[in-house]
Amino acid sequence: MLDAVSGTRMVTARPAGRGGRGARERILTAATTLFHREGIHATGVERLTEHAHVSKRTFYQHFSSKNDLVEEYLRRIHQAGGMPSEQAIDTAASPRGRLLAIFDSAPGSRLRGCPFHNAAVEAADAMPGVEDIVHAHKLDFTARLIHTATEAGARDPYRLGNQLAVLFEGALALATSLNDTSPLLHARSAAETLIDAATIDSGK
Amino acid sequence: MLDAVSGTRMVTARPAGRGGRGARERILTAATTLFHREGIHATGVERLTEHAHVSKRTFYQHFSSKNDLVEEYLRRIHQAGGMPSEQAIDTAASPRGRLLAIFDSAPGSRLRGCPFHNAAVEAADAMPGVEDIVHAHKLDFTARLIHTATEAGARDPYRLGNQLAVLFEGALALATSLNDTSPLLHARSAAETLIDAATIDSGK
Repeated sequence: MLDAVSGTRMVTARPAGRGGRGARERILTAATTLFHREGIHATGVERLTEHAHVSKRTFYQHFSSKNDLVEEYLRRIHQAGGMPSEQAIDTAASPRGRLLAIFDSAPGSRLRGCPFHNAAVEAADAMPGVEDIVHAHKLDFTARLIHTATEAGARDPYRLGNQLAVLFEGALALATSLNDTSPLLHARSAAETLIDAATIDSGK
Repeated sequence: MLDAVSGTRMVTARPAGRGGRGARERILTAATTLFHREGIHATGVERLTEHAHVSKRTFYQHFSSKNDLVEEYLRRIHQAGGMPSEQAIDTAASPRGRLLAIFDSAPGSRLRGCPFHNAAVEAADAMPGVEDIVHAHKLDFTARLIHTATEAGARDPYRLGNQLAVLFEGALALATSLNDTSPLLHARSAAETLIDAATIDSGK
């Protein structure tokens, strides 16, 4: 599980082709910006190539299809340990602080939620490879929450970890629906109550 | 607030045009099925007209654009009191039972989450009319939760109502991400803990 979040940069075996190694990185950077900000379906290959300053020929030398690029875009975030708010679980000092830190991270200018969940919404059963990555990422993050709940002394860490996974997904999703950060604050206050209830009298 | 959830069928002032009154209903039925199951961007006017058995000419006699149809699709669900799982807040006997009932409703064959949230994800700031309807619906449902939290005897019903709104959004969103109903069960158990913590010693 933790290998996937070590942040190790993935080494690609694919030949660089015309446009050089920089072209592949530029395409992935464009995808990371545009898929998250404007959506996956709304971002066509034309828009991606313009944004990355590459030709369509170069694009298809690096990615066999847009779907291939979508999978690589998500895989990269997963391999980096998730979004910044997910990475926050590794930063605080105490286990309790780590469980709460995921609700604290400063949002960007426009709340666009979780790239994995958003991809699942857009995929709608038509992109099985994408859905596999989303499942793997969500289950991995839940496992990290359960592990940290154990360290925090929860009597039933599986239960607490899964409850916090739902709260975290809801905080990002409702913040997206409302374009407002207040769901993160409400989720944090709920998380405190759930952690307290799960750890009280547990001896830690 | 409650007017919007009375379930009263909206009366349209738009002339029926060719295809008759039935055509408009068939288009809306097709939209309700396809937008939810396959997504908004993935469902083009061609697919909608095929599914509704109407010509493109008839489609545009009833809806000035696909965007117009998306707004009407969401408005209808809002005016019916939301999704079945949201309507469940009006069904149980006790206020506590009503707060928990929203996590109980049986899902369909494929979990596709909240149509309002999904529309916000797909709209991505490019469909302001859609986003206004999403905001109105989410704020309205949160107000219903706060109202029911008051009836349940919560010391701070605003806080509990908002916490449950995040949990509910998270249950649907994570169930969509994972294509699994277990997030609804975890959300329900978290809701019980939050309701207990918010109402204990409140004298009800």
